[in-house]
Amino acid sequence: MDFKSKIKTIEWVDTYSKMVDQTVVPYEYKFVNITSGEEMFNAIRNMIVRGAPAIGIAGAHGVILFAQELEKENLSREVFVKELIKKAEYMKTSRPTAVNLMWAVDKQIEVIKNSKSDVKGIIEELKQNAIKLENEDIEINKKIGEYGAEVVPKGAAILTHCNAGALATVGYGTALGVVRSAFAKDNTIKVFADETRPRQQGARITTFELAMDGIPVTLITDGMCSYFMKKGMIDMVVVGADRIAANGDTANKIGTYTVAIAAKYHNIPFYIAAPLSTIDISIKSGDEIPIEERSHEEVTHINGKRICAEGINIINPGFDVTPHELITGIITEKGILRPDYNKSIAEAFSKDNI
Amino acid sequence: MDFKSKIKTIEWVDTYSKMVDQTVVPYEYKFVNITSGEEMFNAIRNMIVRGAPAIGIAGAHGVILFAQELEKENLSREVFVKELIKKAEYMKTSRPTAVNLMWAVDKQIEVIKNSKSDVKGIIEELKQNAIKLENEDIEINKKIGEYGAEVVPKGAAILTHCNAGALATVGYGTALGVVRSAFAKDNTIKVFADETRPRQQGARITTFELAMDGIPVTLITDGMCSYFMKKGMIDMVVVGADRIAANGDTANKIGTYTVAIAAKYHNIPFYIAAPLSTIDISIKSGDEIPIEERSHEEVTHINGKRICAEGINIINPGFDVTPHELITGIITEKGILRPDYNKSIAEAFSKDNI
Repeated sequence: MDFKSKIKTIEWVDTYSKMVDQTVVPYEYKFVNITSGEEMFNAIRNMIVRGAPAIGIAGAHGVILFAQELEKENLSREVFVKELIKKAEYMKTSRPTAVNLMWAVDKQIEVIKNSKSDVKGIIEELKQNAIKLENEDIEINKKIGEYGAEVVPKGAAILTHCNAGALATVGYGTALGVVRSAFAKDNTIKVFADETRPRQQGARITTFELAMDGIPVTLITDGMCSYFMKKGMIDMVVVGADRIAANGDTANKIGTYTVAIAAKYHNIPFYIAAPLSTIDISIKSGDEIPIEERSHEEVTHINGKRICAEGINIINPGFDVTPHELITGIITEKGILRPDYNKSIAEAFSKDNI
Repeated sequence: MDFKSKIKTIEWVDTYSKMVDQTVVPYEYKFVNITSGEEMFNAIRNMIVRGAPAIGIAGAHGVILFAQELEKENLSREVFVKELIKKAEYMKTSRPTAVNLMWAVDKQIEVIKNSKSDVKGIIEELKQNAIKLENEDIEINKKIGEYGAEVVPKGAAILTHCNAGALATVGYGTALGVVRSAFAKDNTIKVFADETRPRQQGARITTFELAMDGIPVTLITDGMCSYFMKKGMIDMVVVGADRIAANGDTANKIGTYTVAIAAKYHNIPFYIAAPLSTIDISIKSGDEIPIEERSHEEVTHINGKRICAEGINIINPGFDVTPHELITGIITEKGILRPDYNKSIAEAFSKDNI
C-alpha cells in the first residue's frame, strides 16, 4: 500500500526544521521553515505543528535551533551547555499537556549531557539524534498500526476524534496508523471523523489526510457520535493521546472523554493508539496531568468570524482525561496493553529501558 | 423581573407573519415579514424560524397566508375549504420532526372544519386562533418555567443544548423559560450553553438571548460537556424537545442524546422542558419519530467557508432521540412528569382534553 501522505510532516534539513503548516490545512498544504528557537516555541504554541508525537520532534528541533544561536555567541563549552539546557527546559513549556514534548527534549538534554564533543560536535550529535527520533517515530507508528489492525473487525467503521494521523506525527500516524494498516489488509473499512471543535482538527486535518490516501471518511459533528453508535454504524473508536498516566488514564483532545462515555454506553470498544513515549509513568493518575487552557477566541471565532454574542464567558480546556475504566486497550509499539493498566504499563516499561 | 427578550419572536400582524430572522442572530436582530404560504414553507425549512413551539405558530400563520391567497381566486366555499386543507397538509411537510408544527396546523384545520362562516369569516377565525395560540404559548412557557424553577438548586449551573428559549417559542422559552424563572428567584444561577453544531443555535442564539437578559452564560463546544460535569461544574441539564413519544423517548436537536448519556454517567439530573403539544401520544416510542436529514453544507461549511477536505461523506441528521431511561423528568405546563412516562404522560393527557 503506497500512501501519498508518506511525506514527513516534520523533518530536520541541514540548519532548520521543515514542517507542514497545519493551521492552513485543508485550504493549503504548504511547508514552512522554522529557523530560530523562539520561532519554534511559537510554532508549537500556535499549533503550526500539533499532535503529541510531532511536537515532540518539534521540541527536539527547537533545541538544535537554540544551540545554533548560542554557537554564534562564542561562549565557553561549559556556559554553552548550561545555557542550552536552560533553553531546552524553556522549550518544554510551549505546551503543557503532551508529554512527548518533554520526552523528546529530555532525549536531547541527555545527548548534551553525555557528549564528549566540542560545541560544534554537540550540535552535530543533536541533529543526528533528532533525525534518529524522526525515523523511529515512523517505525513505531507502523508497529502500532500492525498491532492495532489485529483488533479491527472486517469492514469495520472506526470513529476517531481530533487528528492522530500522519500530520500529528512524523508520518503514518498513531490512531490513523491503525486505520492505514487495517485498510491495507481490508479496503472495506471506513472512518467516521469527529469535527473536533474548537480547532476542527478532525474536519480540517483528518478528512484531508484520509481523502488523500483514498480511505473513505464520513465527517460528523462532535455531538453526533452517540446517534451513529446507537444505529450500529460505529464498530470501534480509536484515538491518539497526549499523555497517559501509569494507571492508564489518558489525556487527549477535548471531547475525547465524551466519546469514551458514549462508547461505553453502547458497548463499543474504545482504544488509545500511542507510542510508549506518551506514557508518563511518573504520574499515578490522570488527576496529575496539567490541562492547557487555550485562547477564548478558539471557541468564539471560526475562520476569523465571531459565532456568538458579546459579553459572555468562555472556558477553553484543550484536553480532557478519559479514565482508564473506559479504555478497552492502549495500542503501543510493544503490543496492546490491557487492564489492569498499572500492571501492563509497568510490564511494557520493564521489557527494555526506554 | 423584566426580561428584554419579551418581544414576540413571531406574531401575526393584520395580513402577514412578522418574525425574528434567526439565521442572522447574533450578527443582526431584525424582523422579516412573511407574506405568502410558500414563503412560510421556506422560512420553516430554512430555519428563518426554528424551535418546535415557534414553528408550530409559523405553521398556523402559514395556513392563514394560504387562505388569503386562495381567497383571491374567488373559489366556492367548498372548494376553498378543500384546497386550504390540502395546503395546510402541505405546510406540515416543511419539517418532519417537530410535532408542534403538525399540532398547530391541525388546530387550524379544526377551525376550518368547524367554521360556519363564509370564506372571509374562516380567515378571520384562523387569525383569531393563531393569536390565541401565540398568547397561550407564552402562558404555557411561564408555567413550564415555574414548575421547572422548583427543581433548580440554589446557585445551580444549568447546561442546555441548542436553543429552547424565547427565540424558539413566541416568547419566554421552554428550557430557557426554566432558566428565566429560576433566575428571577435566584440571580446566582448560571448557564452553560453548548455551541450545538452544525447550526450553532447555542452559540448564536442562546448566548444572545441570555446576554440580552443579563443571565450569565458560558459558551462551550459540544464535546466539552463531560469535562465540566466531571469537574462538578454542572448541576443539571435542561433542554427542549421536538417530539416526545408516549413512553417519554424524546427527539431533540442532534447532540442532545450525547449530553444525556454524559449526564447519566455523572449522575446529573437531565430534564426536558416542553409543552404538552410536543408530546405525540400516537407513537409508542422514539423509534417511530422521523429524523430529518438536513443539507450536507451545514456540516461542511461555516459562514460560507468550507471547513474540511473535498470528496468526503457527510450524514447530517437534524435530531436524535434520547431514550426515556436517561430522562429525570419532563417539565410541562401541567407539572413535571416523572417515570414511568407511559403512565404520567397518559395521566397528563387525561386531565383535560388537549
